[in-house]
Amino acid sequence: MKDIDGGVTAPAGFRAGTTGCGIKNNEKSDLALIVSDVPASCAGLFTTNRIKGAPVLVSRENVKNGTARAIVANSGNANVCNGEDGISAALAMTAETARRIKCDPAEVLVASTGIIGKTFPIDSVLKGIPRAAANLSIDNGHEAAIAIMTTDMVPKETAIEVEIGGTPVRIGAIAKGAGMICPNMATMFCFITTDVVIEPPALKKALQRAVDASFNCITVDGDMSTSDTVLILAGGKAGNSPIKVRSKAFDTYTEALTEVCLRMAKAIITDGEGATHFITINVTGAAGKGEAREVGLSIANSPLVKTAFFGSDPNWGRIICAAGYSGVCVEETNITISVNNTLLFDTGNVIPVDKENLRRKLSSRDITVDIDLGMGRAESTVYTTDMTHEYIKINAE
Amino acid sequence: MKDIDGGVTAPAGFRAGTTGCGIKNNEKSDLALIVSDVPASCAGLFTTNRIKGAPVLVSRENVKNGTARAIVANSGNANVCNGEDGISAALAMTAETARRIKCDPAEVLVASTGIIGKTFPIDSVLKGIPRAAANLSIDNGHEAAIAIMTTDMVPKETAIEVEIGGTPVRIGAIAKGAGMICPNMATMFCFITTDVVIEPPALKKALQRAVDASFNCITVDGDMSTSDTVLILAGGKAGNSPIKVRSKAFDTYTEALTEVCLRMAKAIITDGEGATHFITINVTGAAGKGEAREVGLSIANSPLVKTAFFGSDPNWGRIICAAGYSGVCVEETNITISVNNTLLFDTGNVIPVDKENLRRKLSSRDITVDIDLGMGRAESTVYTTDMTHEYIKINAE
Repeated sequence: MKDIDGGVTAPAGFRAGTTGCGIKNNEKSDLALIVSDVPASCAGLFTTNRIKGAPVLVSRENVKNGTARAIVANSGNANVCNGEDGISAALAMTAETARRIKCDPAEVLVASTGIIGKTFPIDSVLKGIPRAAANLSIDNGHEAAIAIMTTDMVPKETAIEVEIGGTPVRIGAIAKGAGMICPNMATMFCFITTDVVIEPPALKKALQRAVDASFNCITVDGDMSTSDTVLILAGGKAGNSPIKVRSKAFDTYTEALTEVCLRMAKAIITDGEGATHFITINVTGAAGKGEAREVGLSIANSPLVKTAFFGSDPNWGRIICAAGYSGVCVEETNITISVNNTLLFDTGNVIPVDKENLRRKLSSRDITVDIDLGMGRAESTVYTTDMTHEYIKINAE
Repeated sequence: MKDIDGGVTAPAGFRAGTTGCGIKNNEKSDLALIVSDVPASCAGLFTTNRIKGAPVLVSRENVKNGTARAIVANSGNANVCNGEDGISAALAMTAETARRIKCDPAEVLVASTGIIGKTFPIDSVLKGIPRAAANLSIDNGHEAAIAIMTTDMVPKETAIEVEIGGTPVRIGAIAKGAGMICPNMATMFCFITTDVVIEPPALKKALQRAVDASFNCITVDGDMSTSDTVLILAGGKAGNSPIKVRSKAFDTYTEALTEVCLRMAKAIITDGEGATHFITINVTGAAGKGEAREVGLSIANSPLVKTAFFGSDPNWGRIICAAGYSGVCVEETNITISVNNTLLFDTGNVIPVDKENLRRKLSSRDITVDIDLGMGRAESTVYTTDMTHEYIKINAE
């Protein structure tokens, strides 16, 4: 597996185009098209929030066809809670994109992020689509990453190449999302392109595994925002033997796809609103993987844990308290907790440490919590950020 | 029902004593005794966190006897995660209190709040108990409220008198707790005294109802901290006919007890760490009471909703988003949302409002969210605060 340039346009057969439609009341780029030269296998995962954006409803239908030609995405307005007008707008975006790239509207996937419940400026967006289609290019991967940003501080993209049965295969991605101190926060998008040859069912399975081990391990899982969307288009230009489920090739490809998703997930965390620490929570010794994840998320979502780490305070009391209310039947006398490799609590016993020394160690960007539940052999890792003054400022103003 | 003075020593037959044991490394009062002159019916409700403080384990056992003489409580050290030493310390507190007031150690209930996992200074506390016992007085209710404070800005106490079958009966209470922006936050104590004549089973039932309608409706329910404790002692000096379950007297008494608990719950919310707004969330039109409460808690616990209200922003989009991920099967087109009586979202339709005008209205202390789910007839009210810079500061430093 090696890193390559080009982001979402790195895989063979993909172009991107962007433009500004004035959705955000400025000159900034806010519309991105990602187009496959040929019909591509596709798969998607969407928010499970009961309140869903109109684009989620439209894309969820279109992705069922198993093939798609394009993704059209805008930032600035999420097209959520806009009723029938919202659905019409999302459909109009697919129709206009289809007309420009000459395909069926059902072969276009759509995604919108930004403010909720504001009339969607469909006229401006429909005027923008032809402009974005006119500048489709294999050089515009980075521009596409910029066009989907909202409160993101930095564009997020990656691309890798991996050999599948001797054939080099590429995977590229762009993502947006920030400010997810809980799994109920900002919208997360990840659009993935790949030139691998794979049938839609296998692609969907690979995507589900990759997302479970990445986006569902940061506290921004698809359960929460009204618009969370992960889409993948597999155009097949790499020319490998088609990948089947339960094969070495499938495992290799899924591992590579997971790496791409994990990079994007970590980039989102690192760009968390006002975040000053990147926190990794390794839960081991759980009775089951689900329980390990529950404990990890409970710790990761605790405002008391998050504010303690903002203050570089190795407060294991808040960590064990969050484990205690996670719903998992943990036992104090079985639990061991270390922070940045310093043992703080060992099977019920408090370990005396040089707190000032540890506090200095925690002032670095990366904090790792290791918590062993002493109940079994399952484990899970969850990633999150601290909670800071800046977070409050960004979200209150 | 009328307000009276005296807090926890207002009911006949109760005295309180306090002292400073130096637990908090200063001269402040940190130990409180509340003593009934006679064996009192007792009941208690405790945290359901899997990690429980030693005092919770001891009191949970002692309360099963149905009668008690005293509560001994300290602030500054929660005596949590201290293993066998912690249990010994909690038992020693009950034994020393019993010796001073001449009762059985099993008739003493104990509670501790403060830092988790720090060796409990039992020697200092044991030296303090005789001092507190020596100054037991019917004038010390307010002093007891002060002695149990931790990050509380103000002491919390109340007392009322209500007629039960023509006999005046008194209920007094003190409470501590602050900083509960989620139900997983600070420790909450509420110690209630009453001179009513009531058998332990009826008392327990009345307490459960009162707590369900008060402490379990603020986002500090007993599920969460390692030490949350509500205790009630009923000494019987009022001389009313004994209250039986399923009687008019029981209902009248439970209503009065609920009012006392609700006052204490609201006082805790109002004292929330760094809080600038008191937020009431009325959920109506739910299919069941549990569902109404789930939606209310989901909204109340959303950092995005809380920070929006800190900025006096009537962001109904964040409210509906939190309702959407509450786990309750809400439907966008059935939901209606008002904030401070201004209709913002009506069964799927966004209502245009003068945002600046509404923002000014929301700069006042009290914010009320009314959300109708349009699914049924059940309802629930949840109370919370906004999330502010000050909250981050208090918890990070």
